[in-house]
Order: sequence, then structure tokens, then C-alpha cells
Amino acid sequence: MFQNIIKNISRFVILTPEEENIYEGLLTLQKYPKKTHLLRAGEICQFEGFIKEGCVRTYYLDENGFEVTLLFAVEDWWITDIDSFNNKTPSKIFIEALEDTEIYMLNPETKEELMQKVPKFERAFRLMMQRYVVTLQNRLVNTISQPATDRYLEFIRVYPSIPQRVAQYYIASYLGVSKEFVSTIRKRLANKAKIEQ
Amino acid sequence: MFQNIIKNISRFVILTPEEENIYEGLLTLQKYPKKTHLLRAGEICQFEGFIKEGCVRTYYLDENGFEVTLLFAVEDWWITDIDSFNNKTPSKIFIEALEDTEIYMLNPETKEELMQKVPKFERAFRLMMQRYVVTLQNRLVNTISQPATDRYLEFIRVYPSIPQRVAQYYIASYLGVSKEFVSTIRKRLANKAKIEQ
Repeated sequence: MFQNIIKNISRFVILTPEEENIYEGLLTLQKYPKKTHLLRAGEICQFEGFIKEGCVRTYYLDENGFEVTLLFAVEDWWITDIDSFNNKTPSKIFIEALEDTEIYMLNPETKEELMQKVPKFERAFRLMMQRYVVTLQNRLVNTISQPATDRYLEFIRVYPSIPQRVAQYYIASYLGVSKEFVSTIRKRLANKAKIEQ
Repeated sequence: MFQNIIKNISRFVILTPEEENIYEGLLTLQKYPKKTHLLRAGEICQFEGFIKEGCVRTYYLDENGFEVTLLFAVEDWWITDIDSFNNKTPSKIFIEALEDTEIYMLNPETKEELMQKVPKFERAFRLMMQRYVVTLQNRLVNTISQPATDRYLEFIRVYPSIPQRVAQYYIASYLGVSKEFVSTIRKRLANKAKIEQ
């Protein structure tokens, strides 16, 4: 049952069987049906979640009320609003299940208990945060300076399974273009692939 | 001499005098005159640096060869290319001193030695990374959806001292606008402030 989340952590630190048990004992498994929200703007984020199965996105509403998708997360990704979770401030973002989703969760208390009981999780979470910083930096650089087609190519590199799993609308709201434009990019890339064959 | 960097770390963990000594013994102080580079694209980043005095920026060249400023850092900020530093991959960014700058540096070996000798630094660096994630997320959200005037207001909130310290060109390359436009925004805000008095 906990196979994937143990595998995830073992990329960063080696756990003893006792430490694995402590970890597993602190996790709770939550289920969110498709289209439900794990977090809404204004709420305080009470979880850091590891996706066992499913797909979620984080988004916010811009000043005109349009949804802007910040990130997607699928199996084996962590998801939270780190600012709200750490500082207990109202979140500015929404986290929504795009498929039926099962997610292992730590709350602020269980996360702190984990760090106290198994200090090597400090290292594991530090290294995970570093990877997340790299993801965010790349997203930032691409958002500032890449044309939409290159942003789409980067998007499918980071999220190879997403185009088959979610509506084009969500991808458009991630790339900052219309859904018709996503459709145009996909057709153009498909034609290019045909020509190159 | 080490007062500021010890104060910085003590926001996250409490160090004993012995642990402070270990930390101080692993840091090297480097000096970079104004306009010199701490890192160039293509090089592997060998440092995580804490700014004792001065001001630096990270930037990259977009596909048209234009400089895009990602972040500024002044006294008491850390600066690195975390991707290159951790994965020993060639950096895509430049780090440049905008003033004469003095910086305490850890390299990959001294950082690892620090973690081994004083494991509570795992926690300190995890918490620092979390704060950095929040900074990056805010920068991302603002870049995607805020008009230039709001981006400027957010910029002076995060970097209150920068407008007095660096040329408008650098601020423009951070906001993704022309330097004439930065000048227009500043005048408009100054007039607005006068009217409201």
C-alpha cells in the first residue's frame, strides 16, 4: 500500500523498517472525487500531500476572474501551498482534483512529529524542496521568455501524461494561451512529426 | 565578522558556540568588484553564497540575446544556481555583482561537511528553501498575471533598497518592460503619492 511513497523518500534517504513504520503511521489517506477541491483560496492549507493515484492542479483567479493554472501534479508528486502551510496564512490558490484522486497527507503536527522522530526526513524534505525550486525556476524562465510552442514542448517534457488526461482548457490556462491555440500548436507539432518521418 | 550570517541561521535553528565555530570555519569570504561575474552560463556553480555586503543579480540571455533579470539579492540573502550546484550541470544563468560585493561561500564539499557535522543545518536549509519557494511562487504569479505597475509595486515590496542602488535598466529587465516604462511608472506613482497627500 505504501510502496510508492516509500520509494519516493528512498531517493533521498535510506529508512530502516522501524522508520518506515513511523512514517506510514503518520500518513492519512484521503480521497477526493474528480472536480472537488482539496484547498480553496482563503483557507489555511493543512496538508502536504503525496499523490497515490490521480491528478490535481493548483490555480488562482487573476484580477479579471480568469483561472491561471500554476502547476499540475500526478502520481508520485507532492502537492501543497507551502506558504499557507508553513505560515498559517490564508491561501491565495485553489487545489482541485482533475480525476478521482487518492492522496497521502501530512498535516503540520504530523510533519513536525515526523521530523522529531526521524530527523533524516529534514534532509529528505530539504532535497525535495531543492528539486521543487528547480521546477519553479524553469517554469519562471519559460513563462518570461519562451514562445508558446516552446512552452508547450517544455510542458509535455515535465508532464508527459497530462495531455491525455486533462481537458485542453487546463493546459491553455497553464500556458497562458487560448484553448484554440493549444489545439493549433498540437496540430502543428503533429504535422511536423509526420513530415519528419 | 560573522554576525549577520549567524543571525540569519538563528532564525531557523539555535546553534551552540561549538556549532557556530564549525560553521564559521567552513565559510570562505570572497570579494567581487562591481560588474564582475560570480557565475557565467555554461559553468558549474560551485557555491551557495550569503551576501555580507553588496548587491548581485541573476539573469539569463533569452533567445534574442536580451538579458532577463530573474532575481536580485542584497545583504543577508543567499544566492546560488541550485540546479547547477546540486546536479553539477552547466548553469543556464549568470550571477553578476552590481556593487562591490563580499560574500560568504559554501562549496559542495563544505556544505556536505556542515550537514554531516551539524545535522541541524538540514532543518535550517530546508526552512530556507521553503522561504525561497514562496518567493519564487510569488514572482511566478506576478509575472503571469499582474500588470506592470503592480509588478513594480511588488518588486519594491520585496526589494525596498534596490531602486536606489541599481540602474533602471536592471529593474526593467526584471519586470520585462523597457527602462522608459519603469521611469513612467515611477513618475506616475510619485504623482499619485503627491495627490494623496
